Amino acid sequence: MLWKAYNHVSELRGTALSAPDVIMPEQYAIVVRDIPAVPKTRKDRKDQVDSYFKSLYADEFYDSLVITDNTEVNIIWEDLTKYRNKLAHAEAKFAASKTRTRPTNKKYFIFGKKFDTIDYCNKMIATLVPKLKKEQQKTIRGKQKDSALIFFTNRKAATSAAQTIHAKKADTWTVGEAPEPRQMLWRNLGLEFYQWQLRQDIVYLIVALTILFYMIPITFITAFTTLEKLKIILPFMSPVVDKAMVKSVLEGSIPQIVLIAFMALLPKFLMFLSRTEGIPSVSRAVRASSGKHFYFIILNVFIGVTIGGTLFSTIKDLQKNPKQIWMLLGKSIPENATFFLSFVALKLFVGYGIELSRPFSFFMFYVNKRFFCRTAAEEKKAWAPGDMNYATRVPNDLLIVTIVLCYSVIAPVIILFGVAYFSLGWLVLRNQALNVYIPSYESYGRMWPHMHARILAALIIYQFTMIGAFSLKQFYYAPLVIPLPILSIAFAIVCRRKFYYSFCHTPLEVVCAEMRETPNLRAIYKEFIPPCLRSEYPDEEAQPVPDASSASLLQPPEYKDLIKSVEEKESQSLISNLWGPTPETEASNSV
Amino acid sequence: MLWKAYNHVSELRGTALSAPDVIMPEQYAIVVRDIPAVPKTRKDRKDQVDSYFKSLYADEFYDSLVITDNTEVNIIWEDLTKYRNKLAHAEAKFAASKTRTRPTNKKYFIFGKKFDTIDYCNKMIATLVPKLKKEQQKTIRGKQKDSALIFFTNRKAATSAAQTIHAKKADTWTVGEAPEPRQMLWRNLGLEFYQWQLRQDIVYLIVALTILFYMIPITFITAFTTLEKLKIILPFMSPVVDKAMVKSVLEGSIPQIVLIAFMALLPKFLMFLSRTEGIPSVSRAVRASSGKHFYFIILNVFIGVTIGGTLFSTIKDLQKNPKQIWMLLGKSIPENATFFLSFVALKLFVGYGIELSRPFSFFMFYVNKRFFCRTAAEEKKAWAPGDMNYATRVPNDLLIVTIVLCYSVIAPVIILFGVAYFSLGWLVLRNQALNVYIPSYESYGRMWPHMHARILAALIIYQFTMIGAFSLKQFYYAPLVIPLPILSIAFAIVCRRKFYYSFCHTPLEVVCAEMRETPNLRAIYKEFIPPCLRSEYPDEEAQPVPDASSASLLQPPEYKDLIKSVEEKESQSLISNLWGPTPETEASNSV
Repeated sequence: MLWKAYNHVSELRGTALSAPDVIMPEQYAIVVRDIPAVPKTRKDRKDQVDSYFKSLYADEFYDSLVITDNTEVNIIWEDLTKYRNKLAHAEAKFAASKTRTRPTNKKYFIFGKKFDTIDYCNKMIATLVPKLKKEQQKTIRGKQKDSALIFFTNRKAATSAAQTIHAKKADTWTVGEAPEPRQMLWRNLGLEFYQWQLRQDIVYLIVALTILFYMIPITFITAFTTLEKLKIILPFMSPVVDKAMVKSVLEGSIPQIVLIAFMALLPKFLMFLSRTEGIPSVSRAVRASSGKHFYFIILNVFIGVTIGGTLFSTIKDLQKNPKQIWMLLGKSIPENATFFLSFVALKLFVGYGIELSRPFSFFMFYVNKRFFCRTAAEEKKAWAPGDMNYATRVPNDLLIVTIVLCYSVIAPVIILFGVAYFSLGWLVLRNQALNVYIPSYESYGRMWPHMHARILAALIIYQFTMIGAFSLKQFYYAPLVIPLPILSIAFAIVCRRKFYYSFCHTPLEVVCAEMRETPNLRAIYKEFIPPCLRSEYPDEEAQPVPDASSASLLQPPEYKDLIKSVEEKESQSLISNLWGPTPETEASNSV
Repeated sequence: MLWKAYNHVSELRGTALSAPDVIMPEQYAIVVRDIPAVPKTRKDRKDQVDSYFKSLYADEFYDSLVITDNTEVNIIWEDLTKYRNKLAHAEAKFAASKTRTRPTNKKYFIFGKKFDTIDYCNKMIATLVPKLKKEQQKTIRGKQKDSALIFFTNRKAATSAAQTIHAKKADTWTVGEAPEPRQMLWRNLGLEFYQWQLRQDIVYLIVALTILFYMIPITFITAFTTLEKLKIILPFMSPVVDKAMVKSVLEGSIPQIVLIAFMALLPKFLMFLSRTEGIPSVSRAVRASSGKHFYFIILNVFIGVTIGGTLFSTIKDLQKNPKQIWMLLGKSIPENATFFLSFVALKLFVGYGIELSRPFSFFMFYVNKRFFCRTAAEEKKAWAPGDMNYATRVPNDLLIVTIVLCYSVIAPVIILFGVAYFSLGWLVLRNQALNVYIPSYESYGRMWPHMHARILAALIIYQFTMIGAFSLKQFYYAPLVIPLPILSIAFAIVCRRKFYYSFCHTPLEVVCAEMRETPNLRAIYKEFIPPCLRSEYPDEEAQPVPDASSASLLQPPEYKDLIKSVEEKESQSLISNLWGPTPETEASNSV
């Protein structure tokens, strides 16, 4: 089944990538990092990059876009956007108001001086716009990083360029496929290779420590949040807390609340770590985060609960008789079968109900619509269901796979719950994927190899558990199952060899088909310009290789243009978020 | 120093590969393996390959050459060559003979019927030539494998094609850089990926067993070759053997002779294993064989002698107190310092003397010239010095590096011998490389990363030994050297990242320079046809895409042409062997 699924996903990926009627901007671009210092013979970074790639790809090179450090310009741009949204909100409120009272604000949310919102926002926008322009010019000319996006005139050239070593010193001019414009992590694109590597090592260390010692701060905080301590910190609470019923409820629930709060923080923390690692695209950060989450829950939930309190005594046993290691899981599992049986059942009966009815989103949308939304854009934003959130969904489902497989030897009834969980899941999530959630990026099935590897890992853990359980029961034919894990590992290697590389890189075969329409290269180029810099890049269709820094000085864009472009961008992205997935995303949803 | 050396070799490699005045046929070709079965819409394998690559590389594709199973045609061709050489030899002998006696042969070397050599050879050649032609046609049409060589019209296209994934199923149409024509292992080019992988695993297993248990058959045979046993097997020897002096010499030397014989067999055995592995080029097989030899001598000579007889007792100690593992080498090394000191001294004083004077080659050349050589070609062959034989030279020198580094802590005088060994070696081998040996292939410095990694490994072993020795002596500042191995490992990672990949693949940068002359693509194509099939491929310069099988039927080459082509090939290769290295090989020799 895994083989068939891999084959199927691989086919779908090939079909989606080679679609002749969808223009994917990322297929025309590559990312190049670790560009050496600008030589004296070259005017600037862009000149250097252009001449390098022109010499290598005389016919196929189209243009380049140097990565800049946008931290500051981004702050200003976000401020501007915030005030523009506030202004639109206030204007809509004013227009709807029957008493024609102008909406007002206070300086510090509910304290401070009162002032007119519309005037205030207009004033702020008027000061921010020239500031943004100045910062944009400064960024484009002065804050260039050692990376660039290179655009090619056809997909084949870009695909093979992304896979070829360019420089004699292999750690300079390193290339890679460009991420989709909408999921680019611009800040990480500018990182040097060694910095990236170092960050990765540090993040792995932090994750390992987190996995091993996550229970320690929880225990620590639980110890400090006893009722007695609470009474000292918040003395006005003591009359309430002293009541017998309240006291018993609180005493029982405080550790649970702390645990739930920490577990809720975990995905955010892991996502933050994955972004800090230096990963250039959102989809890859999600995969990295999902992987970390998987290790976390396998070790802390599955292994933790299974071996649990007996861990230390078990290690002592192991030292006496090292052969016992194979029997460890087989011995511990029967004791915890009931716990995991109810765990899967809970997930099955409650989890999918919540998933289908989405009570929290439902509630929040009506609250937002009733009290906070004034403009159409705000209403659309409140309605937007978001995407599937693979970063937590995938590891949780993989945990169920692991539990069901491992406990199937001892408590076969768990298989029924497992089958029900994944059958219902197929129906529910198919509906959610096709009709509810809207993908905010597209990785063309790259999540599958990640899941495949972890399902196989679960299978191998299960096979070892089975060997352990059979040995414990002194089952006569137990040695017959020993080849199973070896076969699983061989299968993993063959799968990796057969499919994995075409998920890492785009095969040349899939991009050799001619496009139905000749793509507009200027539009593709503009897709990659980050929104906060967009107004600084010229609009002319005819200009073949624009020198961004000088062009912006010659033809300063109008104030009106800036506002228009920001508005367009915003409404476009909202529309695409709201009015369903594009054909390319549908292809992958049906996986 | 390692950094500077890597940098230097990397520069030399880049310069040699981008030389604008040397045409390297392998830069215009790639190897493609694991081609799927021929679809029904295609005439044959060549048609399938051509149409596939034409669709991907419309302008750059030039031609393809399907790999065939040449086992049988090669046997016939070698027979033919043997008889042709014999004929030339006999004719030269006849011409030089003053008595005008025709040279004769006996059927089984010195027994059997006597017959006239010239007549016999002529008869054999006359029967073999049509047989060869028939077998050639059969091979080209019927024995096609799943691999092919693809030729491109320019170097850039070939370089990026060799690094790009082509097919959706990444285990079909797998590509790689083509080896030099003169070092192609044609038989291995036809292997499928999984077969190659399996062979590699089996070979690794055999090598591991060989390394661990090589002493066992030696001991076994030594036990069976005592004088008493010899007397039973060869009873006529007993009068000689019974003499006291002969007896004592024989008793002392038999184990040594057996050991020397086994050690002399080892490189041939390892080279045989490396070729069986499925490696497509001679240079890579030499590297693989050198690697195996390195592990062998480090484990059997260095570790074997150092820990030696105390191995089993040491393991028992370790079980009692596992912390001792760091002190193991530090403790054993002082006991063997004298042995290795004399080992290095012997290598230094005797080894380079033999290397410079080459007494065996000198003797063999004069014996051959006096008694066996009749033709000019035979004389040239007897004179040819061969190549450097990296497969045994490199691991032996790396053993000296390891010994000198590790023993420098205990017996610092070994450093003097080490410095003398490598200084003299620099002088001697520079002379040998430039003036004596003739490289039979060119890998453009790919041996260096292999050596670099092993020098670093020696350095790390040395650093651990040092820590062990310092701990044993309870040296107060010993912990200060603990960061050294960590730094060495970090250095290895940085070096690998910076340089290694441009040794694995050709960087695009180095092949983007224009060639001084437009290469003759037909000549490049013909370079890759194996000698035993050469006469079956058409000679026409004008024909752009020859269909080998049909063309050979339409224009059967003349008998004379065949002999001429064989002769030309032979004398050309001899001339190039004898009259010095080509410019491209000189570039790498000066490394």
